[in-house]
Amino acid sequence: MKIAVFAGDGIGPEVTAQAVRVLDKLAIAGLEMVEGDVGGAAYYKHGHPLPEATKEIARGVDGILFGAVGDFSCDHLERALRPEQAILGLRKELSLFANLRPATLFPGLEGFSALRPEVASQIDLLIVRELNGDVYFGEKGMRTLEDGRRQGWDMMSYAEDEVRRIAHAGFKAAQGRKGKLCSVDKANVLETSQLWRDVVIEVSAEYPDVELSHMYVDNAAMQLVKSPGQFDVIVTGNLFGDILSDQASMCVGSIGLLASASLGTRQTEYGTVGLYEPIHGSAPDIAGQNKANPMATILSAAMLLRHSLGLEAQAARIEAAVAKTLADGIRGGDLGGDASTSAIGDAVLERL
Amino acid sequence: MKIAVFAGDGIGPEVTAQAVRVLDKLAIAGLEMVEGDVGGAAYYKHGHPLPEATKEIARGVDGILFGAVGDFSCDHLERALRPEQAILGLRKELSLFANLRPATLFPGLEGFSALRPEVASQIDLLIVRELNGDVYFGEKGMRTLEDGRRQGWDMMSYAEDEVRRIAHAGFKAAQGRKGKLCSVDKANVLETSQLWRDVVIEVSAEYPDVELSHMYVDNAAMQLVKSPGQFDVIVTGNLFGDILSDQASMCVGSIGLLASASLGTRQTEYGTVGLYEPIHGSAPDIAGQNKANPMATILSAAMLLRHSLGLEAQAARIEAAVAKTLADGIRGGDLGGDASTSAIGDAVLERL
Ligand SMILES: CC(C)[C@H](C(=O)O)[C@@H](O)C(=O)O
Ligand SMILES: CC(C)[C@H](C(=O)O)[C@@H](O)C(=O)O
Repeated sequence: MKIAVFAGDGIGPEVTAQAVRVLDKLAIAGLEMVEGDVGGAAYYKHGHPLPEATKEIARGVDGILFGAVGDFSCDHLERALRPEQAILGLRKELSLFANLRPATLFPGLEGFSALRPEVASQIDLLIVRELNGDVYFGEKGMRTLEDGRRQGWDMMSYAEDEVRRIAHAGFKAAQGRKGKLCSVDKANVLETSQLWRDVVIEVSAEYPDVELSHMYVDNAAMQLVKSPGQFDVIVTGNLFGDILSDQASMCVGSIGLLASASLGTRQTEYGTVGLYEPIHGSAPDIAGQNKANPMATILSAAMLLRHSLGLEAQAARIEAAVAKTLADGIRGGDLGGDASTSAIGDAVLERL
Repeated sequence: MKIAVFAGDGIGPEVTAQAVRVLDKLAIAGLEMVEGDVGGAAYYKHGHPLPEATKEIARGVDGILFGAVGDFSCDHLERALRPEQAILGLRKELSLFANLRPATLFPGLEGFSALRPEVASQIDLLIVRELNGDVYFGEKGMRTLEDGRRQGWDMMSYAEDEVRRIAHAGFKAAQGRKGKLCSVDKANVLETSQLWRDVVIEVSAEYPDVELSHMYVDNAAMQLVKSPGQFDVIVTGNLFGDILSDQASMCVGSIGLLASASLGTRQTEYGTVGLYEPIHGSAPDIAGQNKANPMATILSAAMLLRHSLGLEAQAARIEAAVAKTLADGIRGGDLGGDASTSAIGDAVLERL
């Protein structure tokens, strides 16, 4: 069993360091860890945010623990050299098409959601976001029109097989939960969405036990605030998933608690190859200050054990230790507490 | 002074009827009103959701009061014949490029927002959404790829002049408020957004008194839940504006209270030609039951008086009457009350 740790920029190294401590403590027999450079850090070292050597590592492991990428000092670079290309490149390179973003309120944290406690406490949803298509990966460019005006353009599209595989992921996830799937699109305006909706309906025939509904994205953004408890699993495209999952994260209190899994098509003898990352970014404003909450990354490591290494028991142990740490009132600045990055790491280790 | 009333589908006729009663009561000298068919209703009568006769009316008036369009029984029709094309068509036909969506909490309604009262009470923002470009109006289609797969596609784009005019609208709106403008895009992924950001920065040179910031749309969706009080004016593209403005509406309690103005390029002797509509939809589930809250439409009529007819005093009178009605505890089902559509109309009329 081999996993890669790509720490990246900003708070990435600090938070992944704590997750690695947790993995070390579990002393999983035969687990090998290897590091690689990504993001702005990789650009400054090797001239590229996703160097060939990093891709090489990525192709050879069962799972990747990813910190964060993003560095304002790279804003002037051409798009292909910006830090974000590391994560976009890995998603494409490893065909990581299914992004799973669970959003559940930890007991005791009702008071931290921006939503009223009675609304927030109902939240228990999973967003399944497509990660390999949509306007993210279509052709794009800047051009000068005949009349001399500058124009920026991006092609949005989905082909039926791309929709089909993520639809299956959504239906399967719903089967393992409360059996409800809500597909979010903008079919009243977009042809990409019309194809999406048609294919999701086709696939639904194979899942008679799942209750399927459809919602326009504008309405979904509203319903996620109004009554998030109505949702079980939401399946949606790359762009809408980006927006809705960040929005949902705030409903549960802090973005410092939310893990994500990006699963690909390749199976190993242990599980599905995937990449695991906190949904927060590189937070340059607090980088290097031992202030960031490492819980989202620690919980991402737990997802890695579950999905890529088949180690459900160890995954559950980590999750229980994090929940216990929170219940014991040990909280980072994101939750109004003053526990440092390493102190939170210590606390989770103690409770493992 | 001539205005058009396009009631449309579902609850559209009921809610516009109450707004028309309010306008009648004001007895504005020289104000003429004319009706026209739009949406599914127009399709069933004339075979098109935006008949030529309706366009003709639209071109000849100073402002349009619009109800709602949307009818599930039209879902099977080709896109060009669906109800939504009425509103999209009018936006394009009249070059209504600037959609203004104010979101403010009415006093006494703190308890109705899904957000905690202390968060909700801070909300006082205006979303300025571009309405004539983006992926809404680009080329689009369904095609079969060479390998036989179906694909849906939509072209997203913005040209510099399209961004420039909406940027000016955003900066001007900020000058009339707290002087803060936040431009929302996804420049880390989209070239359309990169052009958007570049042009907004260029335009900002003309508004040294406005404090400009930029935010990625995923972060904006999160911040709108976490601390909406940080925003004054948000300027954004058509698609992101659609999502964020519906989301913001929930933060203030009910979508039944939110009006919008869509302003064009044409000036009359009274003001700017525009279309005014509640941001809620046609709500087929409660149509024809005298249950819908007409306040958003009544408030839209107030915006019409202000922006298209230059009747600020009358606009303010309507707004005060609505606020008083709410403060007096007269509330529709959307706010947990039992006042009917016509009863709310009566109550507002009494307080004018
Ligand atoms: C960094 C950025 C390209 C990325 C995305 O938009 O997918 C991020 O927001 C995310 O959600 O993982
Ligand atoms: C009906 C639909 C086409 C429309 C839009 O997406 O613009 C609506 O959601 C709105 O916001 O006015």
